[in-house]
Amino acid sequence: MKVYVIGIGLIGGSLARDIRRHYPEVKLFGIDRDPDHLQEAIDLGLVDQAADYSGLCDADLVILSIPVDALVCELPRVLDHAGEEALVLDAGSTKAEICQVVAHHPKRRNFLACHPIAGTEFSGPSAALEGLFEGKTNIICEVEQTAFKLQELGLDLFRKLGMRIRYMNPEAHDKHIAYVSHLSHISSFMLGKTVIEKEKNERDIFDMAGSGFESTVRLAKSSPAMWTPIFEQNKENVIETLEEYIQNLQQFRQKLVDEDFPGIFKEMDDTNRIKGILDGIPLNKQ
Amino acid sequence: MKVYVIGIGLIGGSLARDIRRHYPEVKLFGIDRDPDHLQEAIDLGLVDQAADYSGLCDADLVILSIPVDALVCELPRVLDHAGEEALVLDAGSTKAEICQVVAHHPKRRNFLACHPIAGTEFSGPSAALEGLFEGKTNIICEVEQTAFKLQELGLDLFRKLGMRIRYMNPEAHDKHIAYVSHLSHISSFMLGKTVIEKEKNERDIFDMAGSGFESTVRLAKSSPAMWTPIFEQNKENVIETLEEYIQNLQQFRQKLVDEDFPGIFKEMDDTNRIKGILDGIPLNKQ
Repeated sequence: MKVYVIGIGLIGGSLARDIRRHYPEVKLFGIDRDPDHLQEAIDLGLVDQAADYSGLCDADLVILSIPVDALVCELPRVLDHAGEEALVLDAGSTKAEICQVVAHHPKRRNFLACHPIAGTEFSGPSAALEGLFEGKTNIICEVEQTAFKLQELGLDLFRKLGMRIRYMNPEAHDKHIAYVSHLSHISSFMLGKTVIEKEKNERDIFDMAGSGFESTVRLAKSSPAMWTPIFEQNKENVIETLEEYIQNLQQFRQKLVDEDFPGIFKEMDDTNRIKGILDGIPLNKQ
Repeated sequence: MKVYVIGIGLIGGSLARDIRRHYPEVKLFGIDRDPDHLQEAIDLGLVDQAADYSGLCDADLVILSIPVDALVCELPRVLDHAGEEALVLDAGSTKAEICQVVAHHPKRRNFLACHPIAGTEFSGPSAALEGLFEGKTNIICEVEQTAFKLQELGLDLFRKLGMRIRYMNPEAHDKHIAYVSHLSHISSFMLGKTVIEKEKNERDIFDMAGSGFESTVRLAKSSPAMWTPIFEQNKENVIETLEEYIQNLQQFRQKLVDEDFPGIFKEMDDTNRIKGILDGIPLNKQ
């Protein structure tokens, strides 16, 4: 089996690690616009050799794990180059624009639109982890648009990685993911900003920060190059969730101003049921 | 050594575990207004037996680890009952009102105002962990108001627990802690609320939640009974931090509306330096 990984960072590299484990006979090719990343991926053994699009005609599987702005440009080009029997799949955190851009592509049936929900706040080939996808959810969109045989190949791969599959249309995906992923990143970035801005003398304040702060602000370490295009493509949904979040914060602030502490208690007590909900989330064990 | 722990939950219970480890000859007494908690603490071996305030005259060390609203009521009463040689210390997440309420108490010099910055989102005796305080920071306020010999006893205890000590005045403590702890809790509770409110069908959305969401929303599992009085006592500082946070979120929203994506990138890129800052935080390894 010949597998091409385009964008050999955290997600592409982790997929490469797992694919090599489950398909020992595989030959892995890496494509990345950053030659240092590509060399690092080869040195780490994530891929066997560097390649370019001219090799794609020979691929059994092509994985696009690049920022979503690059994805909308590169996906049609990759389909142009891919062979008739190749499965092309992506790992983008948005789905509507990506599905739209290839809706009428002559090789649309070679493409499977995926969002494997896994990751860490780190990036680059050295961030790649074996087993990152174990027990995680993979959202597949417009599955009916993919050739049956290629669906099977994709599902077999995700089963080997230990992923749970959920099917969803691209619009529902983008709306829901704005709440459980995109908004979390904004809340975290702005929390980090608020604290950094305030404290001229960092040493003083961060000495006081405990694991609670670290946990809440963890996502503020994430890559701006990855996240800016996600917010751009999912702008409408993200603005909506952000407005609801701001409104909830303003209501909480008003209760503090009004000294409505029974109301403050109730807000938190009602939200405590997140405990039971979170127990159902498959977590990254690292 | 006779140690009385008033409030035998996560913090009191964890302190009791470590004290028993480091002072094998210790006799530990528990006081808790919840008889079930007290019995659980005895069953778990956190304390040796139940007690009440009449025993405090005999104590070498009294630890108050109760919500901060109860603390301002109980601390003067505990000092009334404590012997002349006893060290009384608290673990409250606010410091100004607590120091104020005993400022003129005849046994003020028996009291050491502490905030050991450690914890988890869980509560009750069963949440108590050995080694919870290892490598964490303990903020001590108004140390000069405590008798020299009792300062020594307190510092010896915290050294054995592996804590770093920082000295601070109560007002500075309350101002700084609002940023790195209290605001994190509000941002997390309101994030949880926003997502829960929106999604009628929880299964659909929480299937999509990954470890990023879980991390950001973790503090929303915290106890409302503990946190409501913290927000009440630190109202002024919390409102200030909350207003700055809301303002930063509104600016981010405006950049999205204006499609100022270079600005969005810069916001995140500037905040990325939280990475280096967080590397200095001693984290809970659990």
